[in-house]
Amino acid sequence: MKASQFFVSTLKEAPADAEVVSHKLMMRAGMIKRLGAGIYNYMPMGLRVIRKVEKIIREEMDAAGAVECLMPVIQPAELWQETGRFDKMGPELLRVKDRHGRDFIVQPTSEEVITDIARQELRSYRQLPKNFYHIQTKFRDERRPRFGLMRGREFTMKDAYSFDRDVDAAGRSYENMYAAYCKIFDRFGLQYRAVAADTGAIGGDRSHEFQVIAETGEDAIVYCPTSDYAANMELAEGVALIASRGAETQALTKTPTPGKSTCEDVAALLGLPLARTVKSLVLATDELDKDGNIVKTQIWLLLVRGDHDLNEVKAGKVEGLKGGFRFATAGEIEACFGSKPGYLGPIGAKDVKVVADRTVANMSDFVVGANEVDFHFTGVNWGRDLPEPDVVADIRNVVAGDPSPDGKGVLAIQRGIEVGHVFYLGTKYSAAMNATFLDENGKPRLMEMGCYGIGVTRILGAAIEQNHDARGIIWPDAIAPFTVVICPIGADRSAEVKAAADKLYDELKALGVDVLLDDRGERPGAMFADWELIGVPHRVVLGDRGLKEGQVEYQGRRDEAATKVAVGDVVAHLKGLLKL
Amino acid sequence: MKASQFFVSTLKEAPADAEVVSHKLMMRAGMIKRLGAGIYNYMPMGLRVIRKVEKIIREEMDAAGAVECLMPVIQPAELWQETGRFDKMGPELLRVKDRHGRDFIVQPTSEEVITDIARQELRSYRQLPKNFYHIQTKFRDERRPRFGLMRGREFTMKDAYSFDRDVDAAGRSYENMYAAYCKIFDRFGLQYRAVAADTGAIGGDRSHEFQVIAETGEDAIVYCPTSDYAANMELAEGVALIASRGAETQALTKTPTPGKSTCEDVAALLGLPLARTVKSLVLATDELDKDGNIVKTQIWLLLVRGDHDLNEVKAGKVEGLKGGFRFATAGEIEACFGSKPGYLGPIGAKDVKVVADRTVANMSDFVVGANEVDFHFTGVNWGRDLPEPDVVADIRNVVAGDPSPDGKGVLAIQRGIEVGHVFYLGTKYSAAMNATFLDENGKPRLMEMGCYGIGVTRILGAAIEQNHDARGIIWPDAIAPFTVVICPIGADRSAEVKAAADKLYDELKALGVDVLLDDRGERPGAMFADWELIGVPHRVVLGDRGLKEGQVEYQGRRDEAATKVAVGDVVAHLKGLLKL
Repeated sequence: MKASQFFVSTLKEAPADAEVVSHKLMMRAGMIKRLGAGIYNYMPMGLRVIRKVEKIIREEMDAAGAVECLMPVIQPAELWQETGRFDKMGPELLRVKDRHGRDFIVQPTSEEVITDIARQELRSYRQLPKNFYHIQTKFRDERRPRFGLMRGREFTMKDAYSFDRDVDAAGRSYENMYAAYCKIFDRFGLQYRAVAADTGAIGGDRSHEFQVIAETGEDAIVYCPTSDYAANMELAEGVALIASRGAETQALTKTPTPGKSTCEDVAALLGLPLARTVKSLVLATDELDKDGNIVKTQIWLLLVRGDHDLNEVKAGKVEGLKGGFRFATAGEIEACFGSKPGYLGPIGAKDVKVVADRTVANMSDFVVGANEVDFHFTGVNWGRDLPEPDVVADIRNVVAGDPSPDGKGVLAIQRGIEVGHVFYLGTKYSAAMNATFLDENGKPRLMEMGCYGIGVTRILGAAIEQNHDARGIIWPDAIAPFTVVICPIGADRSAEVKAAADKLYDELKALGVDVLLDDRGERPGAMFADWELIGVPHRVVLGDRGLKEGQVEYQGRRDEAATKVAVGDVVAHLKGLLKL
Repeated sequence: MKASQFFVSTLKEAPADAEVVSHKLMMRAGMIKRLGAGIYNYMPMGLRVIRKVEKIIREEMDAAGAVECLMPVIQPAELWQETGRFDKMGPELLRVKDRHGRDFIVQPTSEEVITDIARQELRSYRQLPKNFYHIQTKFRDERRPRFGLMRGREFTMKDAYSFDRDVDAAGRSYENMYAAYCKIFDRFGLQYRAVAADTGAIGGDRSHEFQVIAETGEDAIVYCPTSDYAANMELAEGVALIASRGAETQALTKTPTPGKSTCEDVAALLGLPLARTVKSLVLATDELDKDGNIVKTQIWLLLVRGDHDLNEVKAGKVEGLKGGFRFATAGEIEACFGSKPGYLGPIGAKDVKVVADRTVANMSDFVVGANEVDFHFTGVNWGRDLPEPDVVADIRNVVAGDPSPDGKGVLAIQRGIEVGHVFYLGTKYSAAMNATFLDENGKPRLMEMGCYGIGVTRILGAAIEQNHDARGIIWPDAIAPFTVVICPIGADRSAEVKAAADKLYDELKALGVDVLLDDRGERPGAMFADWELIGVPHRVVLGDRGLKEGQVEYQGRRDEAATKVAVGDVVAHLKGLLKL
């Protein structure tokens, strides 16, 4: 490609509404252009990256035996009513009425449509397993779209759906997709981690997020550097940090802690480690009658160590809290504890179920609120001062340094951006839509399903969050808009420079290299700034002076400085770098 | 590709709602699957064709210097309000409200969005010309979607938009796209014709439809087999079929024609050629005040020869009818003509403007209605029996055998399916949206625009309407889902057959041939029927008996019978056919 035939449009400054670095750089590099909140035009420079991402996905999905189809953007509401998602999904599901007043939705995913196809097309066990995918425009009407392509409303996603005859076969389909995803992310050239994730109501252990590592990521990834353990914060298991409960050495003492309502403040006041304090969180569960009226409310006290945080997803797995919970009101707290938040604790609480985190359950001589404003108890011990907890469970976020649950080291935490997800669906959709096949005995059976998504456009944002510097984007070779840029200096004045640039361009093109020749006639500074901002990984500069000495300059996007390369060697030099 | 890794799903019978052959065959061949009225899933077999169509378009658009981008499916209403199309377009424009109640549309085309991009990005004459295109999902909420992909609601379209500094440059962009379209349609391997079309209010002569020739086409294409004249029915010029008016030889005679209200019946009754009769059509134009109330109505009588038909688009170009017209009511006709339709004519009509077709203006001794039920006038002559017409114009459809307007032969008519359109827009959108650039003198000027569409998914329907037989689809090589299918017979029983099939498959793949190996183990009859229905253009059959004699069978999809080819020659044979 020659720049004059392409469209290069860079900005010195990012628009004010661009919050994160990837958004800013994509706007500045002319890759995207805002059309509305969370809706972007993909400009030629950005579209090239999208197409490369799509191509890698497509090749690996095909190699894994998945078959590409294309399901519509606008889908009839009927199928979504069959699974109940038309009603259950909130306003993020964009709804449309056609000219006849019929309901449609703009697809956020396609479980319903693919299950409808499967129940019509896959009639016999002989046709299974089958895995269909498509790469299609999606829409999610986010309440607060932001971060450019990271949380847009209209976006491109690859979603795949597997259909299997039984759970074992579905497991193989899952493993197959997991392996394909690893190949895809390897080929992108991004640092990533596949982390175990919560399966929610589906159950089982088959849910993995593919997270691109980036300091700016919204998600915390928990992993063990000395083993292959990796999970997201919701699933990462917090073990008891105290192997067994220590002996009681202190007497229960009601201690004044005036104005100290946080564990940090109390520990500081008392000169104790934060790890000796226990944090109290009060939840409530409501029992409803058939008309939805509350007939009974249970108050729950959840205890985590003062230096730990409650994980609400984990709390939601406690028996009794599974059906959903809320935080207790001030009135409910006053009624059960006789005190205000900040000084709450388990001693003397009425009609409250106590859930202790595993670590808290093994603590001794600890500190809790005294259920009286400006007072805490110190020297608290289970059994002696208060009954054993009703439930002991893992309800906290793990922290760096925790033992790895696999016993093979200690946990570390890094930030990530979720760009892919493989998920075992079981019969959730096939049951709702009666998607059956005939087994070997001619009996109808529900298909076992899995779904597998990759946020195509989100990959761009994540790649940039991971790979950028003060000058701009640093694309990995595989998904760069152009792999090599040739910058001739003064080609309008020097026939030699022009000829050498054209020759190099032709040679690289003949090798199949995605090369761009910058023939815009820009000054060197502006030209270099553009391509550094845009993030082309390899640059060759040709100038009159260098050519006279038989040399050109090569600079990798991450290199501190340019390297002189003999004109005759530059193609070989690039072939080595590009592994051609 | 091996069939076992793909998804082949054929039907013996087409669903009842499939009306046209392309729709029936695509459904039977498992290329599309209906999701809702005018909304289809593109199944793997159909998607392969779409991808090949898109690839050809993309390559030729890029070669012509157009730059690909991608504009959103869901577009904010504001831009559409700027051009007035939000209000002007009827219910075929699908409208959506987001969670905040803001108006959006599902794009049917993208003039507004690209003009918005252009007015921001193209600031200087140095950046022009520029041509942006995208291949994107479109939606038009057709009142009566039908004919499968030919008139769907959701469809894929390539739309390109050119921006130029002046009319001359816009003309060059237009010619460039016209040439690119010819290359694209040549590469599809379809019989097509580029026909001049009406430019409506834009004016000028830069509008061409690309029509795929098919007997079942909705459009009539007018062309001259001995010259390069081609136009659609709206634009094809009807010349006067009578060079100059003949002498009067008959007296005006009021003749009883009881119950004969059509020209055909009257001619038969009177024993005259149909070409001696004149058909009367009554239109009305209303003059409105500023509140939209009718202040004056003018009645128009349009006259075409009895064997001709009125063309309403041509009528709309007559001075006085340009602002829009309607057919007159029975009451208005009675008031002006004192008669009922079927017996109307220009003689004695009150306050009526008479528009005569060019041919009618040169007729003599003709027959018209007498403005009295059951009577016609014969021997009518202009000037003697009635005033000269107020207007003489080309207001009829041409018919086969008419002289070509270029004087180089006679016109023929064939049917076509419009699949592409190149159109000069002028400043229609740039003026509405103030899309200006700075010219050499630093003065802002409106950009001259053109738009260029190809109905990607419609191409599939049109290709099949043109190329099919009783057994199924006959794809041209370039857009076939697979170019070659290898059908091994009894590969499960014969290692030799299996080995030969695998070897041929590998050899063709190595040559880059898009080959499918049918390893499903189907019986020969079922296998052949499937691939004939699906329309793969080249088939190689390998069987035990043939291989013993060192032979395989080749059959082109249009061939009557198979040809025996030596095993060792089959690759060379195919290379010859595929021009590799």
